Amino acid sequence: MKKFYIAKSRRIRATPYTSRIEKQGLSSYTVYNHMLLPTGFNESLEDDYHHLKKYVQVWDVAAERQVEISGQDSSKLVQLMTCRDLSNSKDGRCYYCPIIDENGGLINDPVVLRHNKEKWWLSIADSDVILYAKGLAIGYKLKVKITEPNVDIFAVQGPKSYALMEKILGHEITKLKFFDFRYFDFKGSKHLIARSGWSKQGGYEIYVEDTKSGLLLYDHLFDHGKEFNVKPGYPNAIERIESALLSCGNDFDNNDNPFECGFDKYTNIDSDVEFIGKDALKNIKSKDIAKKLMGIMIDVNFIDMSSSIEIKDLNNTIIGEVRSGIYSPTFKKVIGICMINLPFYRDFKECNVVVNENICEAKLCELPFI
Amino acid sequence: MKKFYIAKSRRIRATPYTSRIEKQGLSSYTVYNHMLLPTGFNESLEDDYHHLKKYVQVWDVAAERQVEISGQDSSKLVQLMTCRDLSNSKDGRCYYCPIIDENGGLINDPVVLRHNKEKWWLSIADSDVILYAKGLAIGYKLKVKITEPNVDIFAVQGPKSYALMEKILGHEITKLKFFDFRYFDFKGSKHLIARSGWSKQGGYEIYVEDTKSGLLLYDHLFDHGKEFNVKPGYPNAIERIESALLSCGNDFDNNDNPFECGFDKYTNIDSDVEFIGKDALKNIKSKDIAKKLMGIMIDVNFIDMSSSIEIKDLNNTIIGEVRSGIYSPTFKKVIGICMINLPFYRDFKECNVVVNENICEAKLCELPFI
Repeated sequence: MKKFYIAKSRRIRATPYTSRIEKQGLSSYTVYNHMLLPTGFNESLEDDYHHLKKYVQVWDVAAERQVEISGQDSSKLVQLMTCRDLSNSKDGRCYYCPIIDENGGLINDPVVLRHNKEKWWLSIADSDVILYAKGLAIGYKLKVKITEPNVDIFAVQGPKSYALMEKILGHEITKLKFFDFRYFDFKGSKHLIARSGWSKQGGYEIYVEDTKSGLLLYDHLFDHGKEFNVKPGYPNAIERIESALLSCGNDFDNNDNPFECGFDKYTNIDSDVEFIGKDALKNIKSKDIAKKLMGIMIDVNFIDMSSSIEIKDLNNTIIGEVRSGIYSPTFKKVIGICMINLPFYRDFKECNVVVNENICEAKLCELPFI
Repeated sequence: MKKFYIAKSRRIRATPYTSRIEKQGLSSYTVYNHMLLPTGFNESLEDDYHHLKKYVQVWDVAAERQVEISGQDSSKLVQLMTCRDLSNSKDGRCYYCPIIDENGGLINDPVVLRHNKEKWWLSIADSDVILYAKGLAIGYKLKVKITEPNVDIFAVQGPKSYALMEKILGHEITKLKFFDFRYFDFKGSKHLIARSGWSKQGGYEIYVEDTKSGLLLYDHLFDHGKEFNVKPGYPNAIERIESALLSCGNDFDNNDNPFECGFDKYTNIDSDVEFIGKDALKNIKSKDIAKKLMGIMIDVNFIDMSSSIEIKDLNNTIIGEVRSGIYSPTFKKVIGICMINLPFYRDFKECNVVVNENICEAKLCELPFI
């Protein structure tokens, strides 16, 4: 498959770590929130996958931008934007929150950090949530301040992340529970650290506000992480598809609703809270959903995903589409995330997918794969 | 300068023309509105620049997405979003309209197409204007429908574009005035065509709604355009900087206001119309602007722009930053678009810019260069 270069410009923002990862052997980028997000280094995706599952990696994920919403109406605005009931949310906790529009269509799926009831960060996937927030705040005349602060996340992921972070930051960091966050000291600077990340291999995300100290910490992790075999990395497509960590824009978009994506437990239509799209979602819930995200295993050893790929049943009827796919060394075939139409998502039929111009046999399954 | 590959995925959408341009010798992409936008072919940027100024090119600019706003409150919503007075706008006309937020900060600079007073298209630069529109519509409870229709623009640009389009579509097309649009017939299908485009070399943009017919027209232009030396192309960085066609995200962003960017004639703060940020802009206008977009000529023959580059005066004081830059074969040096701080934009001092690790002499000038 022919490869193409990425044209850089100020509009596709570099991160504070860009010059470092390019020296560390970076080979490819994607663009995410108008920013460079690494997608590969000199070693193969598969080698990096095995390394991630065994050791520890440091990832430049500064493209996970923050939308800061503060002020006396900030809790109201954040709740308006998400179908998840945040009325019992706590300071210092992260919440995975689908953001939806008036039709119940998905706009984004950020991790929402509640600093306190008048200061929230939405750690967003790839769409300009800040513009939605600004439009709503203006229209509803809310007393809020909405900004994109200078916060550049890097992640420390993998089973050895705990030992590495303990070595650098002390024993306290190991007590941080999953999806909790708080500030930790590194050589006199405070860094917000959450136990979270875009893998299921465990680890932390460091929300760097003090860039100079953050770069020092980044370098320190490599200088002192040799015993844990630390390497640079990136959200790994094999690991994330096996774990069914959904990707906004890949696996779902504004034409899909939370029920179709399996976000039922984050879609609290029976709660008392007011949010946009609640009536639309109640209406959707009263019927069968039109389509459903599922897994698919395809009998082939390579796939190139640059747009959706049709899935047909054995009668040649289109039953859905593959939206993300990758060869899995664990399953020894291509696995993917697909959207399957009603009524085909009800029984897991055999199906066919045309990959690399060949008709390939495939099977649907529930998510996640692992 | 090391080059990096772009990682494709469904999230970075292909256009209907992607498979064609890749066969035609594409070498690099940028990402624009979550879509692939070509930035180079096998021939050099400079060769393509000379060709554009002499002949005709067909460009895949489907990444210029449309935000369709229709319904009884659509005129009200479009006017709320832009500081340009649209009260005397006419059906079938295009309007260049800065979109601003409550602080007067720029969000986008679309070409707005008025189909009629209840149907508008915003042909947007690179930010999710649809989310701003949705937020405002919900908050203000406006009776509108907001969608991203399946419209995939390709442009025909260059001095020979008139002759080529006349050959294919007939004499009527030559009567279309600059920034007018209407539907033209091609083999039984109607295509909205505007006399517009992201160059100053003249030409048209075809807003393809009927994909099949649009692809036929795309191919037809190449099949029948040999006598005009037609080639595939893309918005050419040399031509657009010489002409000072500003690029949202490169030359300005949400921290800049329309007065700082020279959009005074599109910023109608003394009109009677209501728009967001009007009070903020009145306040800004009552003082000196904090910074101003200008041109810069740098005595060097190559620049790599991946983020802003500081500009210093001869006393080593930072006076601004270069935001876009390219070697111009016309001026035989690097030219750029830069933001210069108060009071330095008042007198066009000699200055210095560090390019490729060398201190280079530079001069400020007014825009455009040509």
